[in-house]
Amino acid sequence: MATRRTVTAETRVQPRFCGISTFCRYPQICHVDPENEPVDWAIYGVPFDGAVTYRPGTRFGPRAIRDASQYVKPYHLEHAVMVTELLSLADAGDAPVAPYSCEKNTELACEYALKLGDPAHTKLFAVGGDHSIALANIRATHKRFGAPAGGMAMIHFDAHIDTVDEIWGEKFNHGSVFRRAIEEGLIDPKRMLTIGLRGPINKADDFQYALDHGVTIVTCDQLRREGTKRIDDFLKRLGDDPAYMTFDIDSFDPTFAPGTGTPCPGGLTIQEGFALLRSMAGVHLVGADLVEVLPDLDHAGVTALLASHVMFEILALDAVRVSKGVN
Amino acid sequence: MATRRTVTAETRVQPRFCGISTFCRYPQICHVDPENEPVDWAIYGVPFDGAVTYRPGTRFGPRAIRDASQYVKPYHLEHAVMVTELLSLADAGDAPVAPYSCEKNTELACEYALKLGDPAHTKLFAVGGDHSIALANIRATHKRFGAPAGGMAMIHFDAHIDTVDEIWGEKFNHGSVFRRAIEEGLIDPKRMLTIGLRGPINKADDFQYALDHGVTIVTCDQLRREGTKRIDDFLKRLGDDPAYMTFDIDSFDPTFAPGTGTPCPGGLTIQEGFALLRSMAGVHLVGADLVEVLPDLDHAGVTALLASHVMFEILALDAVRVSKGVN
Amino acid sequence: MATRRTVTAETRVQPRFCGISTFCRYPQICHVDPENEPVDWAIYGVPFDGAVTYRPGTRFGPRAIRDASQYVKPYHLEHAVMVTELLSLADAGDAPVAPYSCEKNTELACEYALKLGDPAHTKLFAVGGDHSIALANIRATHKRFGAPAGGMAMIHFDAHIDTVDEIWGEKFNHGSVFRRAIEEGLIDPKRMLTIGLRGPINKADDFQYALDHGVTIVTCDQLRREGTKRIDDFLKRLGDDPAYMTFDIDSFDPTFAPGTGTPCPGGLTIQEGFALLRSMAGVHLVGADLVEVLPDLDHAGVTALLASHVMFEILALDAVRVSKGVN
Amino acid sequence: MATRRTVTAETRVQPRFCGISTFCRYPQICHVDPENEPVDWAIYGVPFDGAVTYRPGTRFGPRAIRDASQYVKPYHLEHAVMVTELLSLADAGDAPVAPYSCEKNTELACEYALKLGDPAHTKLFAVGGDHSIALANIRATHKRFGAPAGGMAMIHFDAHIDTVDEIWGEKFNHGSVFRRAIEEGLIDPKRMLTIGLRGPINKADDFQYALDHGVTIVTCDQLRREGTKRIDDFLKRLGDDPAYMTFDIDSFDPTFAPGTGTPCPGGLTIQEGFALLRSMAGVHLVGADLVEVLPDLDHAGVTALLASHVMFEILALDAVRVSKGVN
Amino acid sequence: MATRRTVTAETRVQPRFCGISTFCRYPQICHVDPENEPVDWAIYGVPFDGAVTYRPGTRFGPRAIRDASQYVKPYHLEHAVMVTELLSLADAGDAPVAPYSCEKNTELACEYALKLGDPAHTKLFAVGGDHSIALANIRATHKRFGAPAGGMAMIHFDAHIDTVDEIWGEKFNHGSVFRRAIEEGLIDPKRMLTIGLRGPINKADDFQYALDHGVTIVTCDQLRREGTKRIDDFLKRLGDDPAYMTFDIDSFDPTFAPGTGTPCPGGLTIQEGFALLRSMAGVHLVGADLVEVLPDLDHAGVTALLASHVMFEILALDAVRVSKGVN
Amino acid sequence: MATRRTVTAETRVQPRFCGISTFCRYPQICHVDPENEPVDWAIYGVPFDGAVTYRPGTRFGPRAIRDASQYVKPYHLEHAVMVTELLSLADAGDAPVAPYSCEKNTELACEYALKLGDPAHTKLFAVGGDHSIALANIRATHKRFGAPAGGMAMIHFDAHIDTVDEIWGEKFNHGSVFRRAIEEGLIDPKRMLTIGLRGPINKADDFQYALDHGVTIVTCDQLRREGTKRIDDFLKRLGDDPAYMTFDIDSFDPTFAPGTGTPCPGGLTIQEGFALLRSMAGVHLVGADLVEVLPDLDHAGVTALLASHVMFEILALDAVRVSKGVN
Repeated sequence: MATRRTVTAETRVQPRFCGISTFCRYPQICHVDPENEPVDWAIYGVPFDGAVTYRPGTRFGPRAIRDASQYVKPYHLEHAVMVTELLSLADAGDAPVAPYSCEKNTELACEYALKLGDPAHTKLFAVGGDHSIALANIRATHKRFGAPAGGMAMIHFDAHIDTVDEIWGEKFNHGSVFRRAIEEGLIDPKRMLTIGLRGPINKADDFQYALDHGVTIVTCDQLRREGTKRIDDFLKRLGDDPAYMTFDIDSFDPTFAPGTGTPCPGGLTIQEGFALLRSMAGVHLVGADLVEVLPDLDHAGVTALLASHVMFEILALDAVRVSKGVN
Repeated sequence: MATRRTVTAETRVQPRFCGISTFCRYPQICHVDPENEPVDWAIYGVPFDGAVTYRPGTRFGPRAIRDASQYVKPYHLEHAVMVTELLSLADAGDAPVAPYSCEKNTELACEYALKLGDPAHTKLFAVGGDHSIALANIRATHKRFGAPAGGMAMIHFDAHIDTVDEIWGEKFNHGSVFRRAIEEGLIDPKRMLTIGLRGPINKADDFQYALDHGVTIVTCDQLRREGTKRIDDFLKRLGDDPAYMTFDIDSFDPTFAPGTGTPCPGGLTIQEGFALLRSMAGVHLVGADLVEVLPDLDHAGVTALLASHVMFEILALDAVRVSKGVN
Repeated sequence: MATRRTVTAETRVQPRFCGISTFCRYPQICHVDPENEPVDWAIYGVPFDGAVTYRPGTRFGPRAIRDASQYVKPYHLEHAVMVTELLSLADAGDAPVAPYSCEKNTELACEYALKLGDPAHTKLFAVGGDHSIALANIRATHKRFGAPAGGMAMIHFDAHIDTVDEIWGEKFNHGSVFRRAIEEGLIDPKRMLTIGLRGPINKADDFQYALDHGVTIVTCDQLRREGTKRIDDFLKRLGDDPAYMTFDIDSFDPTFAPGTGTPCPGGLTIQEGFALLRSMAGVHLVGADLVEVLPDLDHAGVTALLASHVMFEILALDAVRVSKGVN
Repeated sequence: MATRRTVTAETRVQPRFCGISTFCRYPQICHVDPENEPVDWAIYGVPFDGAVTYRPGTRFGPRAIRDASQYVKPYHLEHAVMVTELLSLADAGDAPVAPYSCEKNTELACEYALKLGDPAHTKLFAVGGDHSIALANIRATHKRFGAPAGGMAMIHFDAHIDTVDEIWGEKFNHGSVFRRAIEEGLIDPKRMLTIGLRGPINKADDFQYALDHGVTIVTCDQLRREGTKRIDDFLKRLGDDPAYMTFDIDSFDPTFAPGTGTPCPGGLTIQEGFALLRSMAGVHLVGADLVEVLPDLDHAGVTALLASHVMFEILALDAVRVSKGVN
Repeated sequence: MATRRTVTAETRVQPRFCGISTFCRYPQICHVDPENEPVDWAIYGVPFDGAVTYRPGTRFGPRAIRDASQYVKPYHLEHAVMVTELLSLADAGDAPVAPYSCEKNTELACEYALKLGDPAHTKLFAVGGDHSIALANIRATHKRFGAPAGGMAMIHFDAHIDTVDEIWGEKFNHGSVFRRAIEEGLIDPKRMLTIGLRGPINKADDFQYALDHGVTIVTCDQLRREGTKRIDDFLKRLGDDPAYMTFDIDSFDPTFAPGTGTPCPGGLTIQEGFALLRSMAGVHLVGADLVEVLPDLDHAGVTALLASHVMFEILALDAVRVSKGVN
Repeated sequence: MATRRTVTAETRVQPRFCGISTFCRYPQICHVDPENEPVDWAIYGVPFDGAVTYRPGTRFGPRAIRDASQYVKPYHLEHAVMVTELLSLADAGDAPVAPYSCEKNTELACEYALKLGDPAHTKLFAVGGDHSIALANIRATHKRFGAPAGGMAMIHFDAHIDTVDEIWGEKFNHGSVFRRAIEEGLIDPKRMLTIGLRGPINKADDFQYALDHGVTIVTCDQLRREGTKRIDDFLKRLGDDPAYMTFDIDSFDPTFAPGTGTPCPGGLTIQEGFALLRSMAGVHLVGADLVEVLPDLDHAGVTALLASHVMFEILALDAVRVSKGVN
């Protein structure tokens, strides 16, 4: 394990404002040193926003996050892990996209993801784009690491439940992604945790499908009233089962993440969000995505900066496992 | 009650980015279906900012809030009420304004408000504009629903007490509005609650007039030190008495509501503000206003979006009463 | 003709920052006085941007243009016509949209347009949205006023020729709209004038289809080198034939119109654009559109303001004809 | 004359981003060296915007212009004059304002101006604020240097004629300022030149009052069609008569000056505006103002930067006269 | 003490948007009334940003803070002190800077500071500029009020520890400032408290130098987990020893302070920061600085506004001491 | 020559918003196909802004230009050349920088440049960063292709002459770059053409050094008065001599290029600038740079977009030569 690491440009020579932007300054996947292959995580963008219901623009998310992530440093203070020493990480570029068809785009992105790294080892981290792109990464992750029956466990941060059956006659869109994932057997709803929901919503039964299928829902208001007990219980039940994490940046309050397309006031604070993520140390992540960053509505890049740190928090969870020798 | 409802454009046909903007997509008052008349609340703008002491620009508040409010959905998750099924709501357009005279503008706006809906039934919700426009709506509300003696109760969210006697020789301005309302007998200061004040202020006795008249003041710092006990006590004392709610968006911290003209750091967080508003379920509201949204200083519309959700939270308080059959 | 006019709110009572925003403060079509019916022009939005090749976001164009157009005054100084006295104009709201399918959206918008005003009299002005929405309005206009053979004449302002056969496997998109219009026989390419093209372009033969079909092309650089002779000749040949005008805001240089999705430096200045539009007095317009305004990239609303004045310049061309009794 | 000069901080010690901001880094009037007293021009702000008809916010104009003007250098390349060697210039601070009354504000600002420098020598340069503040400076200038009969000559750059009789019942506002100045006998309309007007306007006779009183009007379109002949003729007729210059930043196109409250597309380019100003070398200026800079709508300070250079161009006209020994 | 006070322009005559901007409207040091001399605090800017490691631009910090601080009022509500009655405060302008050399700049600024006010009485408050400017003010303060042995105590708010030995071969930069201060004996690390640190950081031992020298570190996460006990203990130990406060605005979360050059998510909220500052009433401050405000990344001036209120909070701590007669 | 070309990602698969950003989507130099080696031009960034005299921030220029350049297409319409078919172009990444020392940075960047491509063939295109970085590229270019005596010819677009001897005691800064280049014998001032200068300037003799050394200066005002005759004459004299082009984006008016650090009103319009560049077809370029793009002051990326098109115009000049077989 000692030789496994991610080689980034030396900031004493190439300061953080210097060089072609890759996620967190990690090497492009084609430039990874042989001794660091296969990479542990292939991080790739999916610049697609053709499945949104309100503001488009997240197709520019991967670029904005790459630029903002230049300031992400490698040592995680709370977990006390040096992420780039424990994990081999790479920027795998952007998937080709099909801007006019969510269904076709999902296939293209999945196909691209499946070619990245070593199928038996490399985990996939997709950066959106709108939430529809998660389905592509979930499919690819499931193909690589899916549990034999019932689908993967899932940890889902979001302002919205995203289990609508169809929108404007279309089954593939950014509000139906988990309905599809459940129907396709990729995700086990009984081991799915959704954090960050809040109102107003369209109608009383918006969450019914999820509840009926056994999803554990923790709304922002419940979290504040009741604390993290239900989350802690879920994590305990989850144990070491392989889990996928999907992180919609709009789980944060629009004050903290203004650059997003369907903002809803009352969301998580950065402090709440980071505390929750850190409480998940020990979870066995097999894939992840971060979605819905919309740069045109961002200011001073605060949303993209936050997103790049969420990405780091998620990777750090895996680094913690490696540091404990459990991966 | 079953047939009473607000008909909004179907989002499956007219998505939220589609159509002429009205408050929360509620119908224009001239388009309300006869079975939904008279409306329960007439929501109207007063695009006036001639009474400010620092930054002007809130005259563009109603338009910005109309646009941002397109994303406000109808079901309140915490109160578990479908607001548009319980209340008949309408956008009553903008009052004519007198941009060069606060006093004359107050008269014009009040006159306009008094013609809206059914005087015996329709409640008035004014959207500013600067805080001076509240006096117009308070006068109109008092005329419609005022208690016989001592004025209405009032719940007041604000960074500033707004009981200055006069400013630059003028009795009518956005810092004197509650002094005037008290003097005119519209508001009973002993049943007035002011939440969100904070320093720095101009001098030690800035709150003296209010304190002398019995106003219950809860500063942001007191709230954090002492919790909501004094607010809870006030609400208990208030009981079912008719109350008016005036909401200055600058009660929120400028981080959450940058688009306002006299921002003061240290204000309410969204989380605090929403919790307080929701704790007021049961209050018997007879009128309301939301003021001081200044779009030119906003970014990504976060302030206008927040304002439109505050509007929704206030209307939801009334929906809760209707749902309990007490209205 | 003396009684025909457009009634707008009196600015002495309702200043330009007051009231629900309609295009140029023209009445909503449902509020037009009977003596002003049928309207001469129905102006409607098509908030669709699902057909773009680069930046999305023009779905918010109609709203931004409505807001910016509040400052458009009614008298055209150069033509010396009072547009609102000569024409009955109305805001016909927004067409329903099909956000996920350009082809379906084109049908929906066309269907909506065909219902507006009096089919025998009312002309249609569509406000985008991306350029794909022009096809809907061209179809509807052709159905109402199309010349018997060979399609309508067309005046086309644009940075791009928009005659690509298909993009990403899709025939309906914002770069193929005039190819489709020519194929469908709606437009006669021999009487089509395209102004504002400029490089860089994708390859040498990007304009070949248009040239092969006889389109008259005047690039920005030709215009500056050669002056307006070819345009003047075209207009002379055109005479009083019915013509459709399609105006892509990106015909202007990005400095003048930053709020657009495929900006190309070197475009028309405002001074050039207005001079060209005014030189077209006498043209027999039977329909028009204005497209590609993208508010999220705009600053201080300059692009939307410019767009609303282009709309006014186009309508003024028709007013000139009415003032000469030729309509 | 050799010792007369304006002492500014040495940029080799205090770079242009250093120090408390004064107009163009000129000394505060209380800090002027005795040998440079009395100053030739006292430049003062009037942060008042209570007289506008559309967007407010120019009250922050003086501060924004002070900040942007730090980059104005002292040597005028085209006129070949070192302005700070030829003229003693000072920042005279801001006049007190009466934010709620244009009429009272006009009096306060005039009163303040009259106390600045040496009444027999010092010329007054007012920086707005909205255009209403010009009346204060015109009054003060007239009192100091007014011609015995018929009022001063005036050169007026503006998108609007500003000779409306009254607006919203008020005689004192930013659209009536020259009507008042003519009525008060301060300005001789027969020697008044207005440059930059353009449409659309409210009605055909908007300019009638001005034309009836003999004002020379040159619209933007006339200027482009006919060149500067009428302006040159005016200047020839004017000769060495004392003239006042009032410069509304909205005479420029909104592309060049987005930060203003009543923007009208089609205005002067910077190139046109500077050429016109420079063609006025030789004019005998006795006072000036620059108005309508609205920082909240500006981006990157381009409007304030432009305004500060216009101020410099105007002062340079006087420096040219001094350099020729005619002052 | 009764006559000691800071005379600011009367807001009834010169509203807060009026006048040349000085810090909090305090008088320029050359204009202080004799009875208020020597001033208690000389507040001066150091517009230098040549020592940064990521985004530059804080050279415009002092101007932005001056402008934003116009809205800072004088009475501190929580401490119940009228700051301007208790302290004589003045804006001492900006130090000359050496933009190309941090080392030389440090000397220039220190030299400038040492000349301000009365060396035996006047305390120095430096406003950055980047954090490197703190060293200048610390040196000057130490020379004036330094404890005989071991250096001054220090309270340090920051996202970063700033004890790197050198960066890019340079000992003087914004990340090495406290290393230098400790080495020079100006600061006693055993009586140094650093609040606001958080990860990610560059490597595990980033804080080692500080820890080895006995600095008390309280990270944001520790603060949330453990409360203020360690801070309270530090303050108790500190007692009445002279202490210097250095406040990096990036100790706040980027949501609250987006306008800064090395933003790190997860920082202090305004509510946390103000509570901590207020808990320090009683501390014997002998100097202070506030640094790293970067206006170009700010929006609506929220960061500069926050910074100006932090400045007020710090000054209020001293006012509290004066009010208790202990100064 | 037929096989020589630049391979960019296929936009039908990887749309322009897709993929890691390189200049104009040209391949990274390490990914160039062998048959396209050695590249004709190596384009590299130098993210250094430590030598500015006013606003810093151009260190983020290369990234912003890479992102904006994604929309630069390959065929030049006016020259009728397919640039990517005629030239082998590559993005050579960013040079290492020395943020605290202009002199050292110049050495580092020069050293980096000298290693790029084939010394006997590959031309160097540097992207700033501030103008000081030009010296590095001029040195490297001179070493590769310098004429034997008297230095290279130079075409210089700029608002400023940049021949100051030293600033703040420093010989290496962004205002002294051509003084140094002349002194070092890299540039022959007699064959140097400077376009775009304008006032105001610091003093009458600011251009004296340049004039004394025989530089041909064409100010913006001269260009408008006299046309391009002097430029045409220069180009005729220049003939086929090797020339270097240095393009400061501030040669454009701030309206067209707001994102720059020392903006000066009255500059070139896009139309003027492009016409001038295109008139230089035939010039024998051996090196080039484009500098002073400051993204934080840009809006909607218009400056970076313009810069990327200027880069394309410059490369197209070389493509024209290749197309004529003269290279």
